[in-house]
Amino acid sequence: MYKKIINDPDNAASEFLEGFVLANERFYERVPGVNGLRSKTRRSGKVSLVVGGGSGHEPMFIGFVGRGLADAVACGSIFASPDPFTICEVAKSVDTSAGVFFLYGNYSGDNLNFDMAEEMLQQEGIKTAHYRVKDDCASAPAERRDDRRGVSGEYFAMMIAGAACDAGLSLGQILEVCVKLDTQLCSFGLALSPGQIPGSENPTFSLGDDEIEYGIGIHGEPGVQRKSMQPADRLVEDMYSNISKDMPLKKGDEVCLLINGMGSSTLIELGIAYKKMRGILDGEGVIVYDSGLGSFCTSMEMGGFSISILKLDDELKKYYDAPHHTPYISKGVF
Amino acid sequence: MYKKIINDPDNAASEFLEGFVLANERFYERVPGVNGLRSKTRRSGKVSLVVGGGSGHEPMFIGFVGRGLADAVACGSIFASPDPFTICEVAKSVDTSAGVFFLYGNYSGDNLNFDMAEEMLQQEGIKTAHYRVKDDCASAPAERRDDRRGVSGEYFAMMIAGAACDAGLSLGQILEVCVKLDTQLCSFGLALSPGQIPGSENPTFSLGDDEIEYGIGIHGEPGVQRKSMQPADRLVEDMYSNISKDMPLKKGDEVCLLINGMGSSTLIELGIAYKKMRGILDGEGVIVYDSGLGSFCTSMEMGGFSISILKLDDELKKYYDAPHHTPYISKGVF
Repeated sequence: MYKKIINDPDNAASEFLEGFVLANERFYERVPGVNGLRSKTRRSGKVSLVVGGGSGHEPMFIGFVGRGLADAVACGSIFASPDPFTICEVAKSVDTSAGVFFLYGNYSGDNLNFDMAEEMLQQEGIKTAHYRVKDDCASAPAERRDDRRGVSGEYFAMMIAGAACDAGLSLGQILEVCVKLDTQLCSFGLALSPGQIPGSENPTFSLGDDEIEYGIGIHGEPGVQRKSMQPADRLVEDMYSNISKDMPLKKGDEVCLLINGMGSSTLIELGIAYKKMRGILDGEGVIVYDSGLGSFCTSMEMGGFSISILKLDDELKKYYDAPHHTPYISKGVF
Repeated sequence: MYKKIINDPDNAASEFLEGFVLANERFYERVPGVNGLRSKTRRSGKVSLVVGGGSGHEPMFIGFVGRGLADAVACGSIFASPDPFTICEVAKSVDTSAGVFFLYGNYSGDNLNFDMAEEMLQQEGIKTAHYRVKDDCASAPAERRDDRRGVSGEYFAMMIAGAACDAGLSLGQILEVCVKLDTQLCSFGLALSPGQIPGSENPTFSLGDDEIEYGIGIHGEPGVQRKSMQPADRLVEDMYSNISKDMPLKKGDEVCLLINGMGSSTLIELGIAYKKMRGILDGEGVIVYDSGLGSFCTSMEMGGFSISILKLDDELKKYYDAPHHTPYISKGVF
């Protein structure tokens, strides 16, 4: 059995949530009775942003609750969607009658449960809308965009949606902004080593000493190709070729760039990958407006990283520039 | 060979630094000619805080440069002290004639090199002082406090020293504040799995499937005891018993509590450990004033965690409460 700092594997996600809220009690409070939390500094008179999904991707989604970002999160068990009742209770706990916007990754389990929650909320007279992040270009071709998974691009999606809510937009207007991400947000990831679900006998997949898995998801899903290990610069070139085929960039385009660690890869490694990716974009005359460097959307302690690129236009840039603050991610000043 | 996202192992630390500065160019700039960086938002008219040490502990020390924290960092190679020339150049690049205060972990290599740099600076007429963090109670008994290593308690030490510098204190006054940490800051760590230095054939140590190493350092140093794996709650009890023997806490004492990941342990695991540690302190009537939860002082991708406790008094609390902001750690508002 893989060693983990846990007590009972079945309670790992809920024990974590309890510890997380206590550790960050200046910022967060539990939503009574369910596995969810809300920001203490949430504002009224605006659409509430509720995010959520399975646990195991920390600090995503829970660490994205805070000023300028999400108002609340509904937490599932590890790699499992929160149930509709949980989502519903979390949403009701933050609605200020302007309605609730849901942002989550495009997975069948999440889609089903969030849809059911929206139906329940609408029956109670609460207005809702949603956007499913589908940034992983490895998971389906552009013709089947609706089959794409949500991965580390959710880092940018939360900033955009959070700022759109904060700006006082209506549910429909927020959705209009988010839909731009369908074609302006693209990610590609690889794994050097698997993660391990607490209590499980085996890792989510196995790789040989010299093997890497290209185009992986964030729940141990298989990738699109198994290759041999390469130097960092070569890995980045290969990954970017997948992104640029899907979302071509040209001289003068402005982007935000995220190099995201999958869990156990060190900041040193992520910085080395960033240097190469930045060199490629600089060489193409693509303007990197801002960047993220760190492990924001993980898959337990998986080794590896993903590249996410957000292509800006004036509207997205305006929302990207808005300040936000949580204990795990912050930008600008309130 | 362990898989790492690197190009040339010998250049890993310097390639990282280049990528790190590019990714955070809104905040940082390189100190020309050496492996160091400084904050773009540093203030003049105060003592400059310079931190540093070996690489491999990210985000420590580099991610602690920013508003309210350090003004600059001198970076060594992985697990190796920066050389005196580097330290000297970094210090000169941020001195505003109020002098330079050095904060770093208590290791013979760092002590030697920082001392030499101070001598060089003083010969050039720059006033200096230093404090060596020695919070690891596993590394030597209280009678030999000066032999103790600096570990994750540096998280709190940087906040205190950064705020003391920001408050306009003199070098001597800053040192007086920091010296309190000798007896009011205590840490204890354990490892479930080793880290791996880039390019090295073997991990820094090896552990059996059911073994853990108690009282480890952050450079792969051996611990004080090898034990069998236990549930999270039991690990926390054992670790805290070491801290409380060294720095007894009583009802009504106020503390700040950090649960720090060593690299690859997930936030889920850290939160579970936090819940237990918090329960113990609450049960003893010790008041937890504030907390940190995350991987701030790592040892490459080592698995495991450490507990750091800062015992507050009115003066330390005042400095702890000061705001700070870097891309990797932030509190309060500027």
